[in-house]
Amino acid sequence: MTTKPVLIDGSWVEADAVGTFQAMNPNTREPMDETYPVSGWGDLDRCLNAATEAAEELRLCPGKDIAAFLEAFAEEIETVADELVEMAHQETALPVSPRLKDVELPRTTGQLRQAAAAAKTGTWRQATLDTQLNIRSGYLGLGPVAVFGPNNFPFAFGSVSGGDFASAIAAGNPVIGKANSSHPGTTRLFGEAALRAIEKTGLPRATVQLIYRTEHSDGVRLASDPRLSALGYTGSRSAGLKLKAAADEVGTPIYLELSSINPVVILPGALLERGEELVGEFAGSCLMGTGQFCTNPGIVFVIEDSNSNKWLEGVTKAFADTAAGTLLSTGVEANLKDGIDELVRAGATRLTPAGEAATDRCSLPNTLLSVSGSSFIEKPEAFQAEAFGNESLIVVCSGLEELVSALRLVEGNLTGCVYSAADGSDDDAYQSVESVLRTRVGRLLNDKMPTGVAVSPAMNHGGPFPATGHPGTTAVGMPASIHRFAMLACYDAVRPERLPSWLQDDPGEELIWRSVDGTYQQGSLG
Amino acid sequence: MTTKPVLIDGSWVEADAVGTFQAMNPNTREPMDETYPVSGWGDLDRCLNAATEAAEELRLCPGKDIAAFLEAFAEEIETVADELVEMAHQETALPVSPRLKDVELPRTTGQLRQAAAAAKTGTWRQATLDTQLNIRSGYLGLGPVAVFGPNNFPFAFGSVSGGDFASAIAAGNPVIGKANSSHPGTTRLFGEAALRAIEKTGLPRATVQLIYRTEHSDGVRLASDPRLSALGYTGSRSAGLKLKAAADEVGTPIYLELSSINPVVILPGALLERGEELVGEFAGSCLMGTGQFCTNPGIVFVIEDSNSNKWLEGVTKAFADTAAGTLLSTGVEANLKDGIDELVRAGATRLTPAGEAATDRCSLPNTLLSVSGSSFIEKPEAFQAEAFGNESLIVVCSGLEELVSALRLVEGNLTGCVYSAADGSDDDAYQSVESVLRTRVGRLLNDKMPTGVAVSPAMNHGGPFPATGHPGTTAVGMPASIHRFAMLACYDAVRPERLPSWLQDDPGEELIWRSVDGTYQQGSLG
Repeated sequence: MTTKPVLIDGSWVEADAVGTFQAMNPNTREPMDETYPVSGWGDLDRCLNAATEAAEELRLCPGKDIAAFLEAFAEEIETVADELVEMAHQETALPVSPRLKDVELPRTTGQLRQAAAAAKTGTWRQATLDTQLNIRSGYLGLGPVAVFGPNNFPFAFGSVSGGDFASAIAAGNPVIGKANSSHPGTTRLFGEAALRAIEKTGLPRATVQLIYRTEHSDGVRLASDPRLSALGYTGSRSAGLKLKAAADEVGTPIYLELSSINPVVILPGALLERGEELVGEFAGSCLMGTGQFCTNPGIVFVIEDSNSNKWLEGVTKAFADTAAGTLLSTGVEANLKDGIDELVRAGATRLTPAGEAATDRCSLPNTLLSVSGSSFIEKPEAFQAEAFGNESLIVVCSGLEELVSALRLVEGNLTGCVYSAADGSDDDAYQSVESVLRTRVGRLLNDKMPTGVAVSPAMNHGGPFPATGHPGTTAVGMPASIHRFAMLACYDAVRPERLPSWLQDDPGEELIWRSVDGTYQQGSLG
Repeated sequence: MTTKPVLIDGSWVEADAVGTFQAMNPNTREPMDETYPVSGWGDLDRCLNAATEAAEELRLCPGKDIAAFLEAFAEEIETVADELVEMAHQETALPVSPRLKDVELPRTTGQLRQAAAAAKTGTWRQATLDTQLNIRSGYLGLGPVAVFGPNNFPFAFGSVSGGDFASAIAAGNPVIGKANSSHPGTTRLFGEAALRAIEKTGLPRATVQLIYRTEHSDGVRLASDPRLSALGYTGSRSAGLKLKAAADEVGTPIYLELSSINPVVILPGALLERGEELVGEFAGSCLMGTGQFCTNPGIVFVIEDSNSNKWLEGVTKAFADTAAGTLLSTGVEANLKDGIDELVRAGATRLTPAGEAATDRCSLPNTLLSVSGSSFIEKPEAFQAEAFGNESLIVVCSGLEELVSALRLVEGNLTGCVYSAADGSDDDAYQSVESVLRTRVGRLLNDKMPTGVAVSPAMNHGGPFPATGHPGTTAVGMPASIHRFAMLACYDAVRPERLPSWLQDDPGEELIWRSVDGTYQQGSLG
């Protein structure tokens, strides 16, 4: 069995491998056919050198050329859509339709096209002109970016196809992708499509490079290598924090999306008004994709009364009656089982029957747990440990005061939801909840579950540590996600013809929005 | 002699002191009259509690109320301007006029007023509205901010008066200021003015708190305290990196302005054209303020020829002929002497005569050093060690190729300047230099020394590590400096009346610029 090559400096070459691995089909627990290399440092070293060279060229590349590549890449992806969907289904067990084919793939090509539009107009640069003092500034690509993709979105967050990738490229940086080792075949198909798009559009060949897996120590070494300019990582907290420590020490920007349990507060009036409806809404959101979303509602706060008791019974029944989906891998399965066991050991009560992993595929029964508000307050860390998958913990509080006290102990999360009565009877309670929850979550929702993450300029898929590494940035939503991978570049009295086009009097792109002497405007200086 | 009180939770109270200290007059080497406390952890603990409470109120405070405070504060400063100037002159030996009275003080009140204008209109929030999906987002104050000010700008970068302070307040955060211990009296006067402005405008009394000095271990403990939301630090690299490590570990945003030697490249055509003019321009910039600017041109790259030799002679003479100014403190004096000695040990040649510190005041002779390009390339780290003060190192390269190779070894800096011929004869060389220098500096200048830092929206007073902690942020220039101290807050389907006013259909401020469905506009949704 031959080992698949890696993509370095524009060619598929034999890896400088220190081992090999195979992905597994979670629906069968059988290994996949293809064998992939575990790259040694030599591969990363070559990637860094090639990316460094490509970066100098890319930084000066007109936005329309970057855009042409991103658009060509989206088209190349569409030509191999069936193959991608089938491979991803084999490697992740995520459903073909609607999930992979009708939702995640169009979202992925849509993101690439949004990135193309952003690269073309250049508004993402936040160009700021002081014409009196002749000082002009804006964001500029900063060099080689590494992207480590997660297991749960093989397309939309993929290391050479997803949001971090699209953002880094749009800013004019070369990307070194490290595949998630649960879906190397899917990532390979993206790498092949990217190289075809590079060839068609003439960007530097090292604009996109791909390796499949490294030793952990080499990942850390990559994060601290002076040739690396920034890093995007989506995945587990423990691995992410090791990369963060390495990058922080050398001052390299790192953008993390780590664990998040996404607190949901359901106030009494909402349960009185529409408790039954909220059974379906919550269970549907929590079990969708077998609970394997970064924004899965993993913890719910309610106040004990007859309506919340009834709601809890309804959700318990819904969890028990819904067939458990397949999990992404044996690793996810084992972590979920451990996570549930730890919550139970900490004092959570199982509302759904305990069950064993399925033998024929990666799966655990849908699990609903509950704990009292006072117990949560006693051990807030233990009850906020993420159990990634089809599980949720309900915190039943004795009253609003206890609920608010519990919320004060909630860590940084991507999202927070508050359900309240339509008739205004919860409005005072809402204020108390919001004042605590607002600064603990990146996205606050009303009467809506958090699992949909629209790719909108107004989206924030981010939040305070430890959900991410910085509360001021988002991984989803053009153009805000782009300048994470850029530096603020100021030009002070630089001669006009030496300015990048987007800072010249005539920016050469009539759609770019620029702040000129405090006024936003498009087109040439008038 | 009584020890001065600290400002905690709106009152001047006796410190929970672990020691005391006095500032020194660098012009006499005599201690100042006033005695200040070294605060123990108890003071910081009280500050953090009071700031946490104030933060919840401030976050909801209308921008116009924040603006009213900032404006009142600027006025209060002006009423004690003479006292401030005199105290700062005593504590720092910086000249009364024009420096303190006519430049730094107006700049400081100007910054506060720019911050007020920004807080009032709210454009700094980068409000982004997706009206179709009803998702709205923008920057929101995130909680207590600590500001550690530097020794060299007692007003404009002061911990309770400077740019970080103004930015943090404008974003709606309370500030815990730690004075620079070289000018506690100056900082006290600002603290008193701030409290008067708080009383006049009714902001939470803990909006501004002030301590004077802590043990290093307590500073580190503050940086990692979960109640602290962000930290701004301007000062030495070693102390800054300790705070950074502590903040990074707990995911708290920290904004650093550390050492910078601000490379200047003077190309041959410029020296041929106007070598004599450039003698005065460089010597003036380098010796201004006794070289104690963050943007002081500490390293200059030239190519050896008869013009550069002549320029070097001219500069040597100018350095020798200019009276050496007074340094900020005995600490600065000792560090500068050590820094020069280390550069000489590494192989630099002294062009100006070696001299001893003055006995009557803090002062060292103006010092010009030189080194060959090849020596620099051999030991780039040694020759980039900052010698803060009236010193500069000239790197004399054998040709353009060596100069560019040397530049490739330059660390992250705040600024980089390139002087080139007006007739275009240096243009190819400029391209080679720019392509290397651009990503290594935050602000690139043409034919201009870096020591002026205009407070402009287009300014970038930032740059890649180790000049700062992140290449994407600036410490000077409203509104860009403000959202460093904010979180990105997204509202997804949040009911209209629950949105902050600046995200409502009618933002209540006609001057705010918002990005609505991709178009920048002011005023209500149309």
